Amino acid sequence: MTHTIREKQKLLARVRRIRGQVEAIERALNSEAGCEQVMHLLAGVRGAMAGLMAEVVEAHVRTHLVDAEKYPEALNVDAASQLLEVVRTYLR
Amino acid sequence: MTHTIREKQKLLARVRRIRGQVEAIERALNSEAGCEQVMHLLAGVRGAMAGLMAEVVEAHVRTHLVDAEKYPEALNVDAASQLLEVVRTYLR
Amino acid sequence: MTHTIREKQKLLARVRRIRGQVEAIERALNSEAGCEQVMHLLAGVRGAMAGLMAEVVEAHVRTHLVDAEKYPEALNVDAASQLLEVVRTYLR
Amino acid sequence: MTHTIREKQKLLARVRRIRGQVEAIERALNSEAGCEQVMHLLAGVRGAMAGLMAEVVEAHVRTHLVDAEKYPEALNVDAASQLLEVVRTYLR
Repeated sequence: MTHTIREKQKLLARVRRIRGQVEAIERALNSEAGCEQVMHLLAGVRGAMAGLMAEVVEAHVRTHLVDAEKYPEALNVDAASQLLEVVRTYLR
Repeated sequence: MTHTIREKQKLLARVRRIRGQVEAIERALNSEAGCEQVMHLLAGVRGAMAGLMAEVVEAHVRTHLVDAEKYPEALNVDAASQLLEVVRTYLR
Repeated sequence: MTHTIREKQKLLARVRRIRGQVEAIERALNSEAGCEQVMHLLAGVRGAMAGLMAEVVEAHVRTHLVDAEKYPEALNVDAASQLLEVVRTYLR
Repeated sequence: MTHTIREKQKLLARVRRIRGQVEAIERALNSEAGCEQVMHLLAGVRGAMAGLMAEVVEAHVRTHLVDAEKYPEALNVDAASQLLEVVRTYLR
């Protein structure tokens, strides 16, 4: 699904950061950290997941909704931006 | 933004139902209803709003992302369906 | 559910503002406004609904989780604040 | 924050499952899986995270909002259940 090597590296970096955040939750539970700290860490992962999903959706819209080789002009860039803005608002 | 008269009627019917639900919350507050009832009514409006947003996003994707008159074949219908499925999951 | 007259007035003011926002969506659909505008208005209602829900949940926690007349000292105010902070984060 | 050994084990099992799901996303990106698959995996993690957060919030409410040793009767169990139902609805 990743469409350039650079994009793939960016997504992978995000996923690895999320894995690190999940491991921090595991450590927090193991070390009997307070509820407050665990809830904070969970909220952090949720935000990071939303950011990753927004990026994947964006890649999907820009790359797959229209076959850009056959129809290089067909995607309405403004309409796509409006859509992605809505998606980002709701993903938070 | 509505693209056929039928689609417009459907969206309007949804909005009017939501307005009725909001008025019910106003009445509940005025009549000193319990927190539980108010929270239930609020959750109901939230669900109805999500359904409306999903429908508007769907209309937007199907109608505006590609100029269908100029490029009748350009929209990848499968990719659009996958996108809308994700949007619906997150809008709940 | 509202616990003081002032609190009730505040919640009612919020609900009425939301009703006005829903009516604006109805007008936008009727006047064939663009998708973008409708999606913006919907996102606005969603935000306002989340704010209202956060306030109702807060009133619920502060008033009903503990019978303050019988147990005036029992609610752990810090723990309640942490909970409400989480609720607000997730309601956005 | 975990309050019994059994509860802690349950939360840890959830976190480890989520870590496994995040690792699956990493593998999917590395193996050039389709957008659709990646979006599905992401939605799965989101659901699992919401379930974990709901459980942590529940533990927090049941354990910390009231000091149960000093005030064993003070927490209104019905009001707490209503609150947790709302939290679960919004966390989905």
